[in-house]
Amino acid sequence: MFPMNTWYVACTPDEITDKPLGRKICGLQIVLYRGREGKVAALEDFCPHRGAALSLGSVVDGNLMCGYHGLVMDCHGKAVSMPMQRVNGFPCIRSYPVEERHGYVWIWPGDAAKADPATIPDLPWSNNPEWAFGGGLYHIQCSYRLMVDNLMDLTHEAYVHVGSIGQNEIDQSPVKTHMEGNQVVTSREMHDIVAPPFWQMAMRAQGLDDQVRVDRWQYSRFTAPGSVLIDVGVALAGQGGINADPAQRVYAIVVDFMTPETETSHWYFWGMARHFKPDDSALTDSIRQGQGAIFNQDLAVLEAQQHNREAFEGRRLLALNIDAGGVRANRILDDMVVAERALPTEAAVG
Amino acid sequence: MFPMNTWYVACTPDEITDKPLGRKICGLQIVLYRGREGKVAALEDFCPHRGAALSLGSVVDGNLMCGYHGLVMDCHGKAVSMPMQRVNGFPCIRSYPVEERHGYVWIWPGDAAKADPATIPDLPWSNNPEWAFGGGLYHIQCSYRLMVDNLMDLTHEAYVHVGSIGQNEIDQSPVKTHMEGNQVVTSREMHDIVAPPFWQMAMRAQGLDDQVRVDRWQYSRFTAPGSVLIDVGVALAGQGGINADPAQRVYAIVVDFMTPETETSHWYFWGMARHFKPDDSALTDSIRQGQGAIFNQDLAVLEAQQHNREAFEGRRLLALNIDAGGVRANRILDDMVVAERALPTEAAVG
Amino acid sequence: MFPMNTWYVACTPDEITDKPLGRKICGLQIVLYRGREGKVAALEDFCPHRGAALSLGSVVDGNLMCGYHGLVMDCHGKAVSMPMQRVNGFPCIRSYPVEERHGYVWIWPGDAAKADPATIPDLPWSNNPEWAFGGGLYHIQCSYRLMVDNLMDLTHEAYVHVGSIGQNEIDQSPVKTHMEGNQVVTSREMHDIVAPPFWQMAMRAQGLDDQVRVDRWQYSRFTAPGSVLIDVGVALAGQGGINADPAQRVYAIVVDFMTPETETSHWYFWGMARHFKPDDSALTDSIRQGQGAIFNQDLAVLEAQQHNREAFEGRRLLALNIDAGGVRANRILDDMVVAERALPTEAAVG
Repeated sequence: MFPMNTWYVACTPDEITDKPLGRKICGLQIVLYRGREGKVAALEDFCPHRGAALSLGSVVDGNLMCGYHGLVMDCHGKAVSMPMQRVNGFPCIRSYPVEERHGYVWIWPGDAAKADPATIPDLPWSNNPEWAFGGGLYHIQCSYRLMVDNLMDLTHEAYVHVGSIGQNEIDQSPVKTHMEGNQVVTSREMHDIVAPPFWQMAMRAQGLDDQVRVDRWQYSRFTAPGSVLIDVGVALAGQGGINADPAQRVYAIVVDFMTPETETSHWYFWGMARHFKPDDSALTDSIRQGQGAIFNQDLAVLEAQQHNREAFEGRRLLALNIDAGGVRANRILDDMVVAERALPTEAAVG
Repeated sequence: MFPMNTWYVACTPDEITDKPLGRKICGLQIVLYRGREGKVAALEDFCPHRGAALSLGSVVDGNLMCGYHGLVMDCHGKAVSMPMQRVNGFPCIRSYPVEERHGYVWIWPGDAAKADPATIPDLPWSNNPEWAFGGGLYHIQCSYRLMVDNLMDLTHEAYVHVGSIGQNEIDQSPVKTHMEGNQVVTSREMHDIVAPPFWQMAMRAQGLDDQVRVDRWQYSRFTAPGSVLIDVGVALAGQGGINADPAQRVYAIVVDFMTPETETSHWYFWGMARHFKPDDSALTDSIRQGQGAIFNQDLAVLEAQQHNREAFEGRRLLALNIDAGGVRANRILDDMVVAERALPTEAAVG
Repeated sequence: MFPMNTWYVACTPDEITDKPLGRKICGLQIVLYRGREGKVAALEDFCPHRGAALSLGSVVDGNLMCGYHGLVMDCHGKAVSMPMQRVNGFPCIRSYPVEERHGYVWIWPGDAAKADPATIPDLPWSNNPEWAFGGGLYHIQCSYRLMVDNLMDLTHEAYVHVGSIGQNEIDQSPVKTHMEGNQVVTSREMHDIVAPPFWQMAMRAQGLDDQVRVDRWQYSRFTAPGSVLIDVGVALAGQGGINADPAQRVYAIVVDFMTPETETSHWYFWGMARHFKPDDSALTDSIRQGQGAIFNQDLAVLEAQQHNREAFEGRRLLALNIDAGGVRANRILDDMVVAERALPTEAAVG
């Protein structure tokens, strides 16, 4: 169950080249392509002629031509032309609101009339020269909700990510969960510790001594339906942590967008926006590679967890304080689903 | 849904060697083997002893011996012998009418009493020294009906087969569909065009100038349950097309036999019988290789179409004039299925 | 359907190293690990916190630590600790009676209160210097019952295992089936024959002339739920067969333990315990390799048989005299399943 009247990340801009891209999102077969002036469009991946996959077709003059018999559809799902055919009476296919913004392509799989691009979240690091960003995409065989849980409880770093970002102090520090508007925030601070390897590297990059003791913080911020942005960083110990003078801290945002494919699989767009050495593209590559390897460690755990949820269906789970962020996030998602179902349908409105 | 009281191509003769061949046809697990004097037999692929697959067994003195415990079945599905056992009372398994003819092995999966070998279609090119034939077999994950549709509307050549047999003139020429007896014929003629690469090669082979303008024709002929033979060729422009003097034309038959495996998969026997340079076996190989590559382009399209038919179940499709051949072919198949279901069963006959 | 209140082989001791082992047994997801002093424990492979697979975790101080968030479970399925959590109220997970004995780890998947280690079968060759043992494990996609059938009717050796242990005399010699207590015994004796290759090798190893004629025997002994031990050997012809003077015979036990994974797949622990040249470890390796190759021949046959049982569901099978052992074994298993279902539940006892 996923909310439909909301924006999800559909793909990254580079995934749509001169060829269309077929992708299943929220159970819907969708084709994305670039129409006139490169503007992205999203349609049902279904040719109204014989049901061929439009994603196997090609883009012609800003429209999408089916690769089977040449029916051309425009970006609104209306048939434009077909050799030797009059297409006026052809049934339309559904188009989806879609926007390219902040380094992602966003899609609204639900009721198009309700789609407001102004509600696409702002990503402050995009187009800001003080920040650098690198990321990737994983296709994961588990519900997107298990990934939300994962990211809202970073305790797992001490177990799953030993030797990189994990350290013992993580699970010895309490977490707090609170709301900031619609955002669920789970935070953890570790005081007067030695920085783990990743942050030692960042401190050196920032010109700081990587051996001095630091305060470390993690603020996981969930926004429905599938965004978890995590403020992470270290500051010289006792200087105010996340609020320390910029010269005495180094920080970044772990970027996570989860988009359901089916009930038991999702697209995971991950990355890191960093506020240090933004011009060092070799560093960007190196972080991307490291983060990709670290996040890959989660895959086996999450896919086995998904398998177990089905094998042990109905089994009660615990909801501890460390789970509070995930629990609240899930409740928000549940409420959205319920609210959507309660919407009057056109027929009922009468 | 497939008609059962009809002949399908089960395999090519070379597929049954000294070992039996297991193949699922119309949902039935069948074993084919060569009995006495090389005569092909077809049985349920199920040993009546413990249910082993007879196709894993071996042929002994014209009978089929189960490879598990040595039960020997004859070509009628009757137990013949088993070491230290009296097999008289053993239950029979079903045998299927089967005939080797015209370069194929034909099977009748339905009521054996109704099987008349005289109704196996004649293939005029077989055993005719003026013709050469080469072909292959693809196992495709879509309904055989989608392949019938594909072959009855060659418009797709302009899109799927660009650069080989496709050319723009195809979808700029109107098609006609008519019946010839039980045969559905969809035809297209292109007048005064430049021959595409394949036909230029054929023209040279025939001793014609490959640069002169030609008339090209395509006559797709569907015969139930799964045969589409396509008359194809070119003649010097204005000389009568398909009826031109043999010295001024070059032609061939695209051979297609589709045999259902399940509702959503089929065996596709494809090939080309040509009426030029019949003795050039290197040419036969070259055409087979080229045709195999071209027909392979259809696979991705058709398998995605099958997937879409299921994902968008219930969605209405168009039936344009170019689809008339496929629509009529499907109607014939539907009628056959309905007629078979209306047959009185033995019990009802009483 | 499998009996649950009984001992099955779960794994071999070497499969549980310092890492836990996840294995599905009788439809249950189970994790096996070595706790204090190397003692094996078996739990549900399900962390009560969030449902992660405990088999991806690690062993800490004799307990099993979940690899996701660090919950530590003891060998009884009770939560022991978790960083910054009070675990007293955490729900327990199920533990399974498990014993390491005679070279195997045995598990009781049913009602733990009924588990009596004294009922684990004795394997006389283990820890006996006069015997040597070598074996392996296959994961097979068929019901364990088809493997029981296979081993209780060695007629198949004449067909499936031609050239190794098969010989024509096998299916020319009658079999007898009788009960010895709870054991089903199917036996076959072949008199005055030439030994097949394997036994010629064994005769040479024993210092016997491998060309003299012999009496050969096979006694397949089924004990519920999944054990078939087969006495096999040859003796100089006319010396009493299995009862001949030890100097004039050579013998071994084919060891087979079948453990259901699902209704249509099982774990097959195979091996051979031999009573000749026990100190020759190269011979052990050689036999293991040969037996592994021979038993591998059964896989294709049995997996196709499983497929056929489903494709031809409801089809009646034969039960010949050679099948009597398998038939009786299956009846015992059926009776066990029925008896377990008739057990009063705790609620019913009231």
